[in-house]
Amino acid sequence: MTLPNDPEQLLEFANGIIAQQSFSTLIGARFTAIGDGIATLEVPLRDDLRQHHGFAHGGLMGSMADITLTFVGALHLGPQVLTSEFKINFIRPAVGEKLVARGQLVGGTSRQAVTRCDIYAVRSGEDGQLGEDRQPSEKLVATALGTIALPDAAPRSS
Amino acid sequence: MTLPNDPEQLLEFANGIIAQQSFSTLIGARFTAIGDGIATLEVPLRDDLRQHHGFAHGGLMGSMADITLTFVGALHLGPQVLTSEFKINFIRPAVGEKLVARGQLVGGTSRQAVTRCDIYAVRSGEDGQLGEDRQPSEKLVATALGTIALPDAAPRSS
Amino acid sequence: MTLPNDPEQLLEFANGIIAQQSFSTLIGARFTAIGDGIATLEVPLRDDLRQHHGFAHGGLMGSMADITLTFVGALHLGPQVLTSEFKINFIRPAVGEKLVARGQLVGGTSRQAVTRCDIYAVRSGEDGQLGEDRQPSEKLVATALGTIALPDAAPRSS
Amino acid sequence: MTLPNDPEQLLEFANGIIAQQSFSTLIGARFTAIGDGIATLEVPLRDDLRQHHGFAHGGLMGSMADITLTFVGALHLGPQVLTSEFKINFIRPAVGEKLVARGQLVGGTSRQAVTRCDIYAVRSGEDGQLGEDRQPSEKLVATALGTIALPDAAPRSS
Repeated sequence: MTLPNDPEQLLEFANGIIAQQSFSTLIGARFTAIGDGIATLEVPLRDDLRQHHGFAHGGLMGSMADITLTFVGALHLGPQVLTSEFKINFIRPAVGEKLVARGQLVGGTSRQAVTRCDIYAVRSGEDGQLGEDRQPSEKLVATALGTIALPDAAPRSS
Repeated sequence: MTLPNDPEQLLEFANGIIAQQSFSTLIGARFTAIGDGIATLEVPLRDDLRQHHGFAHGGLMGSMADITLTFVGALHLGPQVLTSEFKINFIRPAVGEKLVARGQLVGGTSRQAVTRCDIYAVRSGEDGQLGEDRQPSEKLVATALGTIALPDAAPRSS
Repeated sequence: MTLPNDPEQLLEFANGIIAQQSFSTLIGARFTAIGDGIATLEVPLRDDLRQHHGFAHGGLMGSMADITLTFVGALHLGPQVLTSEFKINFIRPAVGEKLVARGQLVGGTSRQAVTRCDIYAVRSGEDGQLGEDRQPSEKLVATALGTIALPDAAPRSS
Repeated sequence: MTLPNDPEQLLEFANGIIAQQSFSTLIGARFTAIGDGIATLEVPLRDDLRQHHGFAHGGLMGSMADITLTFVGALHLGPQVLTSEFKINFIRPAVGEKLVARGQLVGGTSRQAVTRCDIYAVRSGEDGQLGEDRQPSEKLVATALGTIALPDAAPRSS
């Protein structure tokens, strides 16, 4: 099984996988761009995705990182990938009307893909909210780094 | 603001915070034990928390890690904590009727708490499902390590 | 190639590998115990292993973590392993006459091993130094979590 | 205490700190550029910095990451910083005449700096070695992400 080459078909394919992930559907995740070692995932910041101070929940951002890092790995290794692990750093509280995760391939071999993703909180003003300076704004709120691997590794040697 | 000393009041307090986190409510998280540097968080594995192969989604496990690591940090530092970052390793696919995250304090100073959490997939047989050997089972499916800090650090020196 | 079963031969084998690693020799690392999913690595805290405040350098502790996590992974997967990645948290400044890293297997599959390691600073009093209370002491100074993989994974599928 | 503004004085200051770190001296680390949120650290790949296959040891790369991530954090927070933690991913075996770590600030607040660093293996041909295509080459061999904090945080609240 391989990924479609055509950009529009690839985006449709990626969102088709997302649609089969009930958790990704639950949080409202959707790819808006994918291909050439990059992927962009968006989540509208609904009221039911927050922590007790009203900011986006860290678990939500971790979930966006998990999805984005994995798909960028699949661009390199093919669709049959496993996420070995990831790390996420939270930089500042996330407020706005949506979150955007931008992932990219850092380094890939035949064995694994190392992928990176930055998450931004966006205030486009579409919902009446604007940034601190009353302009549309996009702020970096988290960054993640992960390891994506192929599942069909050779059996253990001992 | 400090945490209650009484174990039952502490558990009630922790689940009260969870109830104010709309995201934690959305995924159905609930503490079943907390205190003495440990915390146990449970999530029933509903059908809307899965990835496309039917396993628990990695983002769900990352979310459980985020919540559990943070509360264990709060046991050491007090309730006004921020999660700086965490890392999660996925060990095997998670299937069963619920996930249980068990967190503990690894090392704490006045400045930060380093906390660890193991996540298990549980088949208790209550829903008719049992482990591979038709017995109740609990399998380690992920492990996480994180850094929890106080928000009121001194302002930057330059 | 497989690892020796006999505990003494396994320890000799591990330190034989260490002896072939010029960097591990440079920092003075040596295994004192290995087997059954655990490994203990020691480094005498020489004067040339420090940072500018006189504490053990973070790079030294990262190096001990790298070596220990990898060997614990080899106990599970066999000697032909690669270290995919690791994370280390520094808990408090490391002072004393030696550092001891204690590693253990957290979870292993045929594909990879997830391994953990705690690093302690030891004051045994052998060099005239004792802990704060003038007794021998062992303090947790860092903790690490890593992913060890087999190199001979299947070639990429696309 | 603040950092020099003049680029040459800042580089001299950074290498002065390095010179006081006996471990950094032991591995031969030296900054070649620093300032504006970036730092470049070099280590000539001596014969005593290797693992048993002749590649640069993972601990060496972890040490370069530790040093580089910390200094980039100090560019944002001032010289009195602590490294809370870092993660490093190994991408491919490192061979060549020197390793170069390039660090940058990802996101900084008054409380902490999140910093990133890529490590390259360089074959410039100066020692008679060239890349696979007999040209000077620079290959990405590892990438790291870390958290740098101020030590003078407020005391714990409980």
